[in-house]
Amino acid sequence: MMNIERDFYMSKGEGESSYAKNSRRPVIVISETRPVIEKSVKEVYAALLPKTMVVADLGCSSGPNTLIFVSNVINAIANHSSKLGDQGGHVEVQFFLNDLPGTDFNQLFRSLEQFKRSAEMDGKGDTLPPYYVSGVPDSYYTRLFPRRSVHLFHSSYCLHWRSQVPEGLEGKREVYLNGESMYIDNNTPPPVVKLFQEQFRKDFSLFLRLRHEELVFGGQMVLTFLGRKDEDVYTGDLNHLFGLLSQSLQSLVAKGLVEKEKVSSFNLPAYGPSVGEVVASVKESGAFDVAHIKLFEQNWDPYDDSEGDGMLDSARSSVNAAKCIRSVMESLVASHFGEHMLDALFEEYTRRVAGHLEKEKTKFTVVVLALKKI
Amino acid sequence: MMNIERDFYMSKGEGESSYAKNSRRPVIVISETRPVIEKSVKEVYAALLPKTMVVADLGCSSGPNTLIFVSNVINAIANHSSKLGDQGGHVEVQFFLNDLPGTDFNQLFRSLEQFKRSAEMDGKGDTLPPYYVSGVPDSYYTRLFPRRSVHLFHSSYCLHWRSQVPEGLEGKREVYLNGESMYIDNNTPPPVVKLFQEQFRKDFSLFLRLRHEELVFGGQMVLTFLGRKDEDVYTGDLNHLFGLLSQSLQSLVAKGLVEKEKVSSFNLPAYGPSVGEVVASVKESGAFDVAHIKLFEQNWDPYDDSEGDGMLDSARSSVNAAKCIRSVMESLVASHFGEHMLDALFEEYTRRVAGHLEKEKTKFTVVVLALKKI
Repeated sequence: MMNIERDFYMSKGEGESSYAKNSRRPVIVISETRPVIEKSVKEVYAALLPKTMVVADLGCSSGPNTLIFVSNVINAIANHSSKLGDQGGHVEVQFFLNDLPGTDFNQLFRSLEQFKRSAEMDGKGDTLPPYYVSGVPDSYYTRLFPRRSVHLFHSSYCLHWRSQVPEGLEGKREVYLNGESMYIDNNTPPPVVKLFQEQFRKDFSLFLRLRHEELVFGGQMVLTFLGRKDEDVYTGDLNHLFGLLSQSLQSLVAKGLVEKEKVSSFNLPAYGPSVGEVVASVKESGAFDVAHIKLFEQNWDPYDDSEGDGMLDSARSSVNAAKCIRSVMESLVASHFGEHMLDALFEEYTRRVAGHLEKEKTKFTVVVLALKKI
Repeated sequence: MMNIERDFYMSKGEGESSYAKNSRRPVIVISETRPVIEKSVKEVYAALLPKTMVVADLGCSSGPNTLIFVSNVINAIANHSSKLGDQGGHVEVQFFLNDLPGTDFNQLFRSLEQFKRSAEMDGKGDTLPPYYVSGVPDSYYTRLFPRRSVHLFHSSYCLHWRSQVPEGLEGKREVYLNGESMYIDNNTPPPVVKLFQEQFRKDFSLFLRLRHEELVFGGQMVLTFLGRKDEDVYTGDLNHLFGLLSQSLQSLVAKGLVEKEKVSSFNLPAYGPSVGEVVASVKESGAFDVAHIKLFEQNWDPYDDSEGDGMLDSARSSVNAAKCIRSVMESLVASHFGEHMLDALFEEYTRRVAGHLEKEKTKFTVVVLALKKI
């Protein structure tokens, strides 16, 4: 059975197929989330004037993105504290970078060293608040911090991952409720869809409850994750994304590279909720007010920053997209099927993504959400 | 030139030559330091009754020893808080495990997982305070934490390491003030001894100043490190230990495996101070009171727990001792000489250690020190 804490991590190291090399987030993401983060930082800071501002990035991974976040927060505090004069000028910032224990923290800490050196070389050292960084290796579906000790939580691109494969979907031997699908597609029966949705509600409400305990009064959270544009659960880009991967697995069955039963027993610990589902869960928690919620879109190809619907080069984009998805999915796939089939699977997948992108420039739907502790 | 932050780390992973497999600390160390730690924990806890007790282990390395410390602290708090009734019963503990960025934090975090699981299996979960652990990758000769945010510092077996090779000893090309020695021996001229001592004073007073800023009022530190029994700087077990390593290098020169000039330019960033030197530095700092200071001794062979001066099996003990020392010294030696000579060096070293132990059961002299913030 799948063990998320053991089996799931972004591809390690700094090589061509590592997550660190395949985690380019388009400009559009920063332009959408940065103002939300800045607003939360300023509001929390102005309300509490903490001597030490404690900030946690949950699901930071080993890529450089978490350091862009660190940099944005430091700069936002510096800008705002200088406006408030001396009293604010002495703030210090303590960052906690969190991810599952399987994460390559050595790689993360090496990139942190580079980050510090480059910040020093920029000569910004004097005007920025002192900051301290530590790593927290545990699941954010458990308590990570002491009560009321954190001022700001951030989580980017991971809350679409569930704590486990939907409960009820695994366990009964040789009865595979979801056919050969790994996520939700047109063949997925409504009771199975409900299992995916129920797992989202359970996980998300647990997440909100845990963070509520850890936040100080006046604390906030900024969460970014993959979601769904349409309330209809049978549509959406994640359905396409994982549908193509299911089809790729099936073609490996036809080639004798993978057992059919292995494909039937493979389901993803993932769910992309709609805005309606997210808001309903937050209200139900009674723990947070929604300060901001918005959808934005992002091209499958992380190197394609264009905003239109026209596809410039679907062959190249499919290679870029498939490499990026492989760096995220590889550990889960390998723990279920073994490593021998990875290359064949992602070659097949790249072909199918190319075919899909020729017809339609599918985009990820991203939810950005700011919450205030009640 | 040697770069401590880059070149120095305990041997990685879990293999036979790893630090994790070669960091057995004899029973005698725990029996000497545990009561000191417990006393400091109780005093700090009783004086401040913090909702969250923040505890940092500096120079934790990737071995299991830091988790014994974590366990000791949790148990000490549990014992003490239960005596104080409900008010104390709700304390939470936040641990920071610190070491240089080159440390194998992935390995440390994996052993932390095992530690948590075994603590759960012991069924102690309910009676122990909740605790949270994070890793801090930076030198403790810099600021690591926000002002007044830590209740208890601990550092085990690393404050004999300096932040750099003694200043003044490196730099002038082709003038090697310390001959073929890497530390202090009978051939070391007094001005060179002064450089080693001066580097200790500088580093230790910096360390005290930084930790004073980071400790809360009422906070304490427990420090354990290798020192010197005699005030005479030319005597002591570290002189023997590193003297034998210098001699081993010289015999590799004779065999043509190592260049003479490389040996001359190799000096250690280390110093084992006497009690007098330690107390003088603390007084000079004006930042701490000495609550406890004591020397104890520890056999070179980490598997020899006997207390007498008789050597049971000097051949086996020399193998054990040399393996342990290799796991600590390997990274520094390799960064200066290259990896090709490591096996030859430590074979030669093992022989010389055996010869030495046959004549004399030399022991490490360990300083254990508890300090209260003034």
